Amino acid sequence: MMKTPFLACTKCEREFPLGRVHPRCPSCDEPLEVIYPRLKKGKVPSRGCLLERYRDFFPFPSIHSAISLGEGNTPLILSSRVGPELGIQRLFFKNETQNPTWSFKDRGTIAGLEHALLLGFKKIGTVSTGNMAVSVAAYGARAGIDTYVLVSQGLPEEKIGPVAIYQPHLIMVEGDYGELYFRSLEAGEKFGIYFINSDVPFRVEGSKTIAFEICEQMGFESPDYVVVPVSAGGNVRGILKGFEEFHRVGLINRIPKMIVSQASGCSPITNAFEQGKEVIERVLDPHTIAHAIENPFPPSGNQVLRKLKENGGTAVKVSDEEIIDAQAMMAREGIFGQPAAAVPLAAVKKLLANGYLKSTDSVVCIVTGGGLKYTAALSQQRFDVKKIRMDEIEKVF
Amino acid sequence: MMKTPFLACTKCEREFPLGRVHPRCPSCDEPLEVIYPRLKKGKVPSRGCLLERYRDFFPFPSIHSAISLGEGNTPLILSSRVGPELGIQRLFFKNETQNPTWSFKDRGTIAGLEHALLLGFKKIGTVSTGNMAVSVAAYGARAGIDTYVLVSQGLPEEKIGPVAIYQPHLIMVEGDYGELYFRSLEAGEKFGIYFINSDVPFRVEGSKTIAFEICEQMGFESPDYVVVPVSAGGNVRGILKGFEEFHRVGLINRIPKMIVSQASGCSPITNAFEQGKEVIERVLDPHTIAHAIENPFPPSGNQVLRKLKENGGTAVKVSDEEIIDAQAMMAREGIFGQPAAAVPLAAVKKLLANGYLKSTDSVVCIVTGGGLKYTAALSQQRFDVKKIRMDEIEKVF
Repeated sequence: MMKTPFLACTKCEREFPLGRVHPRCPSCDEPLEVIYPRLKKGKVPSRGCLLERYRDFFPFPSIHSAISLGEGNTPLILSSRVGPELGIQRLFFKNETQNPTWSFKDRGTIAGLEHALLLGFKKIGTVSTGNMAVSVAAYGARAGIDTYVLVSQGLPEEKIGPVAIYQPHLIMVEGDYGELYFRSLEAGEKFGIYFINSDVPFRVEGSKTIAFEICEQMGFESPDYVVVPVSAGGNVRGILKGFEEFHRVGLINRIPKMIVSQASGCSPITNAFEQGKEVIERVLDPHTIAHAIENPFPPSGNQVLRKLKENGGTAVKVSDEEIIDAQAMMAREGIFGQPAAAVPLAAVKKLLANGYLKSTDSVVCIVTGGGLKYTAALSQQRFDVKKIRMDEIEKVF
Repeated sequence: MMKTPFLACTKCEREFPLGRVHPRCPSCDEPLEVIYPRLKKGKVPSRGCLLERYRDFFPFPSIHSAISLGEGNTPLILSSRVGPELGIQRLFFKNETQNPTWSFKDRGTIAGLEHALLLGFKKIGTVSTGNMAVSVAAYGARAGIDTYVLVSQGLPEEKIGPVAIYQPHLIMVEGDYGELYFRSLEAGEKFGIYFINSDVPFRVEGSKTIAFEICEQMGFESPDYVVVPVSAGGNVRGILKGFEEFHRVGLINRIPKMIVSQASGCSPITNAFEQGKEVIERVLDPHTIAHAIENPFPPSGNQVLRKLKENGGTAVKVSDEEIIDAQAMMAREGIFGQPAAAVPLAAVKKLLANGYLKSTDSVVCIVTGGGLKYTAALSQQRFDVKKIRMDEIEKVF
């Protein structure tokens, strides 16, 4: 076994050098991940940018701290209202909406970008229509390198502006969006563009830091459960990997159980989990208000199933109505997430009702992205606005 | 002189007890501020919520850390692209868009809320249509207390949702918006509601922490200049007060010069400053794309003029075109601010061109609020989106 970090297939364990850019195993077509034969136990430094703080858990010989935008270090909020209302005392929200582009994606982007720079790439790209497009565009701008964002035709104007403002090469492609992903990898190899797509091993590495921070914020006591909204699957893989690595070096005593939460209109992983299957099936006609996790055939789906079995966690799906409800519930705590970011709280409510979660459990919900990302979804909420004349003002108090 | 903190008029210095809620001097109609007869020099703790970290600079006997949403602690980003392009090497962005409700307002809200709790209030409120409404609604929700947000009639739907989601008592009032402010104070006194409006002394206290963090992030070396987009005037007052207090206790050696930046369509403070006047005049027919700073008669305007003279700073105004330009320029650094948040960068560009700023100066721009707050403004930008067919994909790289 090599002593320095390397890539390995998450299924067949075939090994690849760290310099490989294609994110999947040529034999299994399953995602690769970074393996660290040696991890040193150390005190985690509290200063520096995200990658500097956790440099012992990354394979980077040096960190380009100048490209950091101050990602990570997001608050872990103990629920003081919603948890007690639901009958659970230790409910936490990890508020990823306070990242530089207001979603968790920035963690994976900085890790992917650092890997791209390490390999000498001068161009990066991504295929995305949402949070990832914004994040890659922002970091590409910050680093001053050519950045290609491929989106599918028909993307509405309001989703284009928040990407375009960072001035990437924004390319709208007519044709099948699923095919675009593969074409991007081909073109990337041919033209020297590092595509930081949703399932690249270094996006997963970036997501590890969510787990690291939770451990630190809870004084190195692991929570019992971590609930993650799952789309491609990279974020939940990363979070679990983070807990595993902190456990391996002795910083925590146990690994929390992961709860995969999906929208019932698009829940390929939960479907397979419930049916005891080992591979996911493509969801035909996906539809949910939680657009950010509407992935009908998640590239890390099978790996998430494998890890979930090993971890002892579970998978659950919630309806759009439950998601909308949870979005308002979470706002009563002062946290406004996009619909996908409210899926974990909806899942917690469901799992408390069916007895899977107990009132004494400690549970962390990952609030993946900010509510301003998708304000059109607010039309589903029922708001009570009083309209009065100035002379009636005393009547309302 | 009293030994414990008290309130004093910023003009006549008349003193008031800390328990006073009305934010203005009954003699001068000028804003009050918190005076600390004694400030102890201490090491600033790095742990805890915002008010805990800086508790030596607040008059709170205890801090309700459970109502914190993780405000403050925002990144200070050294410009690696825009600064060099403009010919200035030490240009920084203090990115306030990473606060819990994505603007600097959260700092003042938590300080005002803590004061309200100290005085035993069970209700809070605000008169605002923008960032402050969102912030007060969020913290009121978090604290679980009755929260009244008064907005003027005709507020567009897209501005209502991001406030309403936190479920405050949202009241739309027909009549003059300026009058509403005074009516809110009257009603507040009568009904026991603490109105955390833009000019309350504790909002100013909250803004101090921006200065504290800048000092810490720069290793207790002050920058030469801090550029602030100015509306009511409370934020720039607070930032300057923060530097003054750190200077007083010996944590920094000098106080940076403040640069008040306003939009030329609504620049009452800059107008008065340029004309050498001691009091501001109301702007008739204010109009600018930077809505968040479109205040025609800022309540702290005269005090900002007084302090600016004493501080030796300056005031400048920039056109909407320069603001739109600066918004795109800042995004090339990976930071997407709302138009008002780009006003400082537009000011820096102007002041470099006219020789006020030199290439060797260190300058901090306060990026007050996130770009997703006002995406409609993006229609003013010129974006270049390429449209291609799938089979043309290789041509674009």
